Amino acid sequence: METSLKKYAIIVAAGSGTRMNSSLPKQFLLLKKKPVLFYSIDCFLKAYDDLEIILVLPQLHISKGQEIIDAWFDNSRIRICEGGATRFHSVQNGLALIETESIIFVHDAARCLLTQSLVKRSYKAAVEFGTAIPGIPVKDSVRYITDEGNEVLDRNKVMLIQTPQVFHSKILLPAYKIDYKEKLTDEASVVDAFGLKVRMIEGEVNNIKITTVADILFAETIIG
Amino acid sequence: METSLKKYAIIVAAGSGTRMNSSLPKQFLLLKKKPVLFYSIDCFLKAYDDLEIILVLPQLHISKGQEIIDAWFDNSRIRICEGGATRFHSVQNGLALIETESIIFVHDAARCLLTQSLVKRSYKAAVEFGTAIPGIPVKDSVRYITDEGNEVLDRNKVMLIQTPQVFHSKILLPAYKIDYKEKLTDEASVVDAFGLKVRMIEGEVNNIKITTVADILFAETIIG
Repeated sequence: METSLKKYAIIVAAGSGTRMNSSLPKQFLLLKKKPVLFYSIDCFLKAYDDLEIILVLPQLHISKGQEIIDAWFDNSRIRICEGGATRFHSVQNGLALIETESIIFVHDAARCLLTQSLVKRSYKAAVEFGTAIPGIPVKDSVRYITDEGNEVLDRNKVMLIQTPQVFHSKILLPAYKIDYKEKLTDEASVVDAFGLKVRMIEGEVNNIKITTVADILFAETIIG
Repeated sequence: METSLKKYAIIVAAGSGTRMNSSLPKQFLLLKKKPVLFYSIDCFLKAYDDLEIILVLPQLHISKGQEIIDAWFDNSRIRICEGGATRFHSVQNGLALIETESIIFVHDAARCLLTQSLVKRSYKAAVEFGTAIPGIPVKDSVRYITDEGNEVLDRNKVMLIQTPQVFHSKILLPAYKIDYKEKLTDEASVVDAFGLKVRMIEGEVNNIKITTVADILFAETIIG
């Protein structure tokens, strides 16, 4: 018998967009006439009927986020919460709204090309193993900067990590009681610091993070 | 006074194209009606008038390479040589044609979006330091697979390596006298094994390796 747990997706869209030299944070830039943010919300809502979204937005853009929800989505399945100073704090704010035993997806809104297939595979892995972190192999040679210069890494062992990073609430909620440190750059690193191993699953090559204008063009090609 | 050294670009296009499920190796796929291979050759020839190209091709496709040269380029600046079983052997075959003291670019034909600016910056660095290896920082979190599972790497220290990898002939020619080992996956790793440190320079975000259909679409967007 399959266990079906309640699902929450914390979509983190709290970035300021400084890297794109744009006054508008990248989650609001338009891709085929819809904001980047639209696509992640749409993907999660369609993947599971019993999934709720917690959308973490910069304080300045909460009303803009609400407009997007009102225009396209079922308001009853999405809550907005305010972002913090770092990704760690933003996720912590989102987690504060979760009390039910559940599977929690944490997703970067800038990865707007994720698929329902990835959402479902990662859910299943998180139910089974407690954690599911999507990663893809590198196509390039990889070097690591050292005090003396640099050295080659075995590229077959290097994985580029994506989101959604997915966890059982029994792991993620206590893990986020930790004090913030700069090295806690994603959820997997918080669970590492909590003393648990994370489970990697296969990510998706197209599940890129939108950070440059070229990425926008690429995403438009994929969305078609 | 600026030293101007003779320049050779070994363009390695010896791949079999199996990753794209295409009967044609990716260096011959069309981008805006010209083969992928066209763009690298064009970029190098335009960057320096005294640069010569050594084009390394799979035996099966040498005539196709010759057709491309005849259609678009000055035949007198390009020599074709046959590829080997691995990238190491292909580069070794190309190096066998070089006897002059020179700066040698080794470039993967699948990175067809390189710019003349990168060619020139890497030349200057190789003249000054003997080696110049372009790398870009990762945008993603990075994990390293270990015997026990996986662990996070400091992403600020991880560099994704591109081509052209550029060397003074006094370094690269003796370095390639080494016996082949599987870990020698690029030219920098051969120079490592020769006992010298390589110098990294800043690569280019758009200088991707064409490996998927999505990459082709991206490249067409960039070429415009």
